[in-house]
Amino acid sequence: MFTLDPILKHDTFLLASLPFSELLLMNDSQYPWLILVPRKKDCTEIVELSSDEKEQLHKESDALSFFLLEEVKAEKLNIAALGNVVSQLHIHHIARFKNDIAWPKPVWGFTESLAYSIEEYEQLIIKIKNSKLYNQFNEAEWKV
Amino acid sequence: MFTLDPILKHDTFLLASLPFSELLLMNDSQYPWLILVPRKKDCTEIVELSSDEKEQLHKESDALSFFLLEEVKAEKLNIAALGNVVSQLHIHHIARFKNDIAWPKPVWGFTESLAYSIEEYEQLIIKIKNSKLYNQFNEAEWKV
Repeated sequence: MFTLDPILKHDTFLLASLPFSELLLMNDSQYPWLILVPRKKDCTEIVELSSDEKEQLHKESDALSFFLLEEVKAEKLNIAALGNVVSQLHIHHIARFKNDIAWPKPVWGFTESLAYSIEEYEQLIIKIKNSKLYNQFNEAEWKV
Repeated sequence: MFTLDPILKHDTFLLASLPFSELLLMNDSQYPWLILVPRKKDCTEIVELSSDEKEQLHKESDALSFFLLEEVKAEKLNIAALGNVVSQLHIHHIARFKNDIAWPKPVWGFTESLAYSIEEYEQLIIKIKNSKLYNQFNEAEWKV
């Protein structure tokens, strides 16, 4: 059975159980930062997914990308499957801005994360609920 | 017309012109590090590709992943489309090892790159030429 890695669970909010992946929001208000975790047990690399699973993952990844570009107005996306610390396959989708604190460096390890205030979190959730991303998936899949 | 970004050109060796992407080897002997650059003009994000182009990119990406896992014996893959410095869409495929110099941190900006010696380079090229990756693509596509 699939269980979300405890570090990922600790560092994020669960936004939705999409058809193939858990959709997480990294609790770091410095960057709009979404993570997809395919619900496949003991999976650490994209190539371990079947063709159908990869297709579904890419579909969900594209949906996040469009949200970050169109609604969050990201100037650049950073999309990455690293997994050196948490080996459970997870794909980062980070909206980058030329005035963000780490620009142009990658965000990992650049600085301590800065938790969302309740207001900031609620604003982002409202933005998600008013977006195509929200409507693209079944309402029942959302946890927010 | 597509032209390879001059920074990418400077930092890498062109190994092949695969059906959709240029295949580059980062000139950093600290990590086996391959890069795919789709030959699509003015493209900066994966979601700017058509469905067919994405399918071809993912196919080429999977081929690199299998090479790095099976032939290079990577302990973990780091696959990433960042593009904060070079905006031309390019996807890193890096073989990571628990004893590599940056582990478990991401490689970008961790340390200065260390150019391949001719011997090291030739050994890697021989490994590629004896691999499934080489046979998977037409001989004419290879530059090495």
